Amino acid sequence: MKDVTLSEISSPRDLKQLNYNQLNTLCKEIRETIIETVSKNGGHLASSLGAVELTVALHRSFNSPDDSIIFDVGHQSYAHKLLTGRFDRFSTLRQKDGLSGFMRPDESEYDPFVTGHSSNSISAAYGILKANAALGKKSTAIAVIGDGAMTGGMAYEALNNIGAKKGRFIVVLNDNKMSISKNVGAVSRSFMRMRNGKRYHRLKFAVSNVLLKMGCIGKGIYNFITKIKDTARSFVYKNNVFAALGFNCLGPIDGHNISAMESIFEIAKSYNRPTLIHVVTRKGKGYAPSENYPNDYHGVSPFDVDKGVNTEIKTDFSAVAGETLCQTAAENVRICAITAAMTCGTGLSKFAEKFRDRFFDVGIAEEHAVTFSAGLAKGGMIPFFAVYSSFLQRGYDQIIHDAAIAGLPVKLLVDRAGIVGEDGESHQGLFDVAFLRTVPGMNIYSPYCYDELEYRIKETIGNNELAAIRYPRGTEWEKADIDFSCDYTVLSNGSERAVVTYGRLFSCALTAQKQLDSFDIIKLNRIFPVSGEIIGLLNKYKTVDFFEEGIRSGGIGEHIASKLLENKSGCAFTIHAVDGVFVSQQTTAQALSRYGLDTKAIISAMERGV
Amino acid sequence: MKDVTLSEISSPRDLKQLNYNQLNTLCKEIRETIIETVSKNGGHLASSLGAVELTVALHRSFNSPDDSIIFDVGHQSYAHKLLTGRFDRFSTLRQKDGLSGFMRPDESEYDPFVTGHSSNSISAAYGILKANAALGKKSTAIAVIGDGAMTGGMAYEALNNIGAKKGRFIVVLNDNKMSISKNVGAVSRSFMRMRNGKRYHRLKFAVSNVLLKMGCIGKGIYNFITKIKDTARSFVYKNNVFAALGFNCLGPIDGHNISAMESIFEIAKSYNRPTLIHVVTRKGKGYAPSENYPNDYHGVSPFDVDKGVNTEIKTDFSAVAGETLCQTAAENVRICAITAAMTCGTGLSKFAEKFRDRFFDVGIAEEHAVTFSAGLAKGGMIPFFAVYSSFLQRGYDQIIHDAAIAGLPVKLLVDRAGIVGEDGESHQGLFDVAFLRTVPGMNIYSPYCYDELEYRIKETIGNNELAAIRYPRGTEWEKADIDFSCDYTVLSNGSERAVVTYGRLFSCALTAQKQLDSFDIIKLNRIFPVSGEIIGLLNKYKTVDFFEEGIRSGGIGEHIASKLLENKSGCAFTIHAVDGVFVSQQTTAQALSRYGLDTKAIISAMERGV
Repeated sequence: MKDVTLSEISSPRDLKQLNYNQLNTLCKEIRETIIETVSKNGGHLASSLGAVELTVALHRSFNSPDDSIIFDVGHQSYAHKLLTGRFDRFSTLRQKDGLSGFMRPDESEYDPFVTGHSSNSISAAYGILKANAALGKKSTAIAVIGDGAMTGGMAYEALNNIGAKKGRFIVVLNDNKMSISKNVGAVSRSFMRMRNGKRYHRLKFAVSNVLLKMGCIGKGIYNFITKIKDTARSFVYKNNVFAALGFNCLGPIDGHNISAMESIFEIAKSYNRPTLIHVVTRKGKGYAPSENYPNDYHGVSPFDVDKGVNTEIKTDFSAVAGETLCQTAAENVRICAITAAMTCGTGLSKFAEKFRDRFFDVGIAEEHAVTFSAGLAKGGMIPFFAVYSSFLQRGYDQIIHDAAIAGLPVKLLVDRAGIVGEDGESHQGLFDVAFLRTVPGMNIYSPYCYDELEYRIKETIGNNELAAIRYPRGTEWEKADIDFSCDYTVLSNGSERAVVTYGRLFSCALTAQKQLDSFDIIKLNRIFPVSGEIIGLLNKYKTVDFFEEGIRSGGIGEHIASKLLENKSGCAFTIHAVDGVFVSQQTTAQALSRYGLDTKAIISAMERGV
Repeated sequence: MKDVTLSEISSPRDLKQLNYNQLNTLCKEIRETIIETVSKNGGHLASSLGAVELTVALHRSFNSPDDSIIFDVGHQSYAHKLLTGRFDRFSTLRQKDGLSGFMRPDESEYDPFVTGHSSNSISAAYGILKANAALGKKSTAIAVIGDGAMTGGMAYEALNNIGAKKGRFIVVLNDNKMSISKNVGAVSRSFMRMRNGKRYHRLKFAVSNVLLKMGCIGKGIYNFITKIKDTARSFVYKNNVFAALGFNCLGPIDGHNISAMESIFEIAKSYNRPTLIHVVTRKGKGYAPSENYPNDYHGVSPFDVDKGVNTEIKTDFSAVAGETLCQTAAENVRICAITAAMTCGTGLSKFAEKFRDRFFDVGIAEEHAVTFSAGLAKGGMIPFFAVYSSFLQRGYDQIIHDAAIAGLPVKLLVDRAGIVGEDGESHQGLFDVAFLRTVPGMNIYSPYCYDELEYRIKETIGNNELAAIRYPRGTEWEKADIDFSCDYTVLSNGSERAVVTYGRLFSCALTAQKQLDSFDIIKLNRIFPVSGEIIGLLNKYKTVDFFEEGIRSGGIGEHIASKLLENKSGCAFTIHAVDGVFVSQQTTAQALSRYGLDTKAIISAMERGV
């Protein structure tokens, strides 16, 4: 039979007509397409390369979109996109108005649920399944989840909820032996044992006997099993977390062998109980550099396919935070650093090497990370939990309950605060200021440049305060020689108009002020609580324009406005912020422009009449 | 030796001098004291009664406060309070300026960490332990956690983080076979197997052999073991969640046998690896009614010791919510209800009975609960997740990421919103408005009476909206015959002064208006987003006083102020809310008075000159 190309696959149904040779050729094309596109647009390369055959097998065994297949996190969903009618738009991946790098229900009926934040797939799939059952629909739902995402507490909450129940439910564990960076924790060690350990061999039974003994499969399935017995390492096994939680565990199965996976999916379908299928894949498969250095090829910027990615450490806010922590830790034994599986992304690689005993990667576990940090603080340490803004949303309750009520001086390094660009809605750091400032006792800082970040980290060490220091993804912008040691800084032209802002938008204000000298700039250094002095100061201006790279609802702008009004201010006040919407994928510059939060917008506001 | 009474125990050290007869007498007195005090003050009875001997054994085996013992949730910490120098103040339990019903570090050095929200103890204890290690302190930390709290994801995140590590760490699993209500989920079934199953008997070894084979204990410990071999069912066992996570598991041990527990604690101390000790206790032990109906005696209001608690279902907001859901579910097959282990507290008992297939108790798992609800909504159901305001803080990220980004019409029934009274800081529902209104697409309602609650629930079913309907603990207050179907309601006296408010403070405003006719009342019905019309309306008043039973920072008051200022309002605006503090335990009336949020405060504000 002749080869079939991706352009001929308009839906997963088309896959079911192909033989294994055709499928293998197709998988090769899928990989080439992914590598080519990601090398141009950036994206999540290694995870997607590892999950190509798994995706093909899933789409042959199940009937998407009637059956809901949810790829947890969505890093590995590119093959899925290529096979579900999005091949012709794939070159727009992660671009403005293009395909999302994650699953997005508004993009395709084949994406049943939003992904982006880890460990939500089992809960979501189970919800869809129970809805189908209640409404008499026959279709099913499958969660495909990586070993890294399995370290997240909400995956466990779902497994615990489901494991005790009757009824078919399928979880596919995509075990690529490392999630984003090297996977940590007991579950990961348990996976290793499941793959390689002695227990494996001792518990290895002939699949057919075991399954028949369980009495839940018929003769048709028996033939299947007999067939796969020779072609795949396939068995029921116990003594792991999932079995202990009441899941029927099948595997490990080779995640690059389509027919073996199809066979085991068929077996799983035959059970009337929750089943977990352990599939072992190779992260980065099919592109030598990413096979050898999957960590470097997890999330990548555009790169040259022949040369591979540039692994030089760039100077950016994350790197400066990491470097500053290293400096302070060398002098102060109480300094320690915590990450939730983001050692590299938050600039902590060097710290992790140099201060092994004071570095803690706790897995994708933000709830635990905050409370563990609070425990460290209680014990006399000065813990810095470095975390992306949008992932810190998972630790909101713990910040209130475990850190703030007792006044423990936990330090949050909130990375990727503000607009993040191409990762889109799920990754924008637009909420941290609004939710952190609800917490009594919280001090929030938003440095605009590397020097200020370094200063803030060093300053907070000496203060027995609960603090969040937030900074954007990427590099510093326009700088000025200013003093940022106090609560706020004024750059005055003696104008009646003030631009008030914080973080990197201060750089935009600086640039604007170079072009237009008709306004003063007031930069917030400690952005919350807001100093009472600022209210007095602002009261004197005729117009105040507040620029905030965050959500308006609950932001600092609303707070300052309320204080001004309570102080009977007569100034014309305007808040410029993101108001009541999620910000979709686009470059950071595009998004800032779209929401009126850049130099041009500041100039334009200052040029308008009072 | 003579009996020793509680008044003679000034610290845990005193316990170490006593023999087992003396201890048993003491335990009896502890129980009597707990029953007497809780019958007067209300509180968590059954959990505390079950943990008396366990607490005594812990305090004899460890050296608190050098060693940190953290009782998860803190429901079971009353005996701990009585034994750590707080006997003479115990009659003030849960009263203003009295002892907290939970662990509070500002109350005693024996309370190492805030408890109240479930499942944080392992993370906190591990943090303290690692801090001790880093700072060269020899002391240890122990987490004491119930089977219910083990259903929370963050407990798993901590276990996963720790299980792979070397070094001593002790978790005591207090298995009372039901957490708050009947425990649910796979872990709970696993506990049952661990207690009673066949696996138990087959794996039962002579402790001494097993431990000696493990090579990690010396002759001294061997003697201990030999001793306890006869007195306790005690062994190392595998094939459970904790063992799979790399914990060394000991037990089950009788949680009412002090010497047996002491022995096993000594064994656990000798290991250089994480150990979990499975202790089986009887919830409610020592008071017949609470032994027989532990669920009714979990958290109680004051009651007559001879007659027991009044189990009649009271009419309150929770009951009305449950009743309304039952009505609607009978007519609409898409209605379903979700709870995170709070069936009774949220008024869902009848729903759970009548609509078994559409009722989901997911365990203490708010993260999963929100996303599971979102999955149900995706599948076409109309899911109502009923949850206490302060516990919903755990689901903040899931509300944003899993419900709001895709615009799924999840309905949150936010119970215990506002001041809750005697449970204090950890349980106040003061943050929900502020964090929920940051979420794009969220609609928030705050009914002040039963009729309005019923109306809102029915109304939201027909609207394809993400919604939160929040209502206070307890009963409705002053009512008026008003129309609440629109966004806001005006009760005008033609005054120049307006009181703006929502929720039950509207009742206070009504009462105030009966005494003083010099102001108008504007009641927000949909409290967010705020209708633009309201801003126009308020602009006409000379003074606007905004009363908000919630945190000021991020509240609706600040939002309205910002809109007024942007609209160049000249009104004198004042926000009355809880500002930048946690509200400690006291009656609801005391707290509302303290923060200027009651009828008297409204009258007083309206009597002040403009």
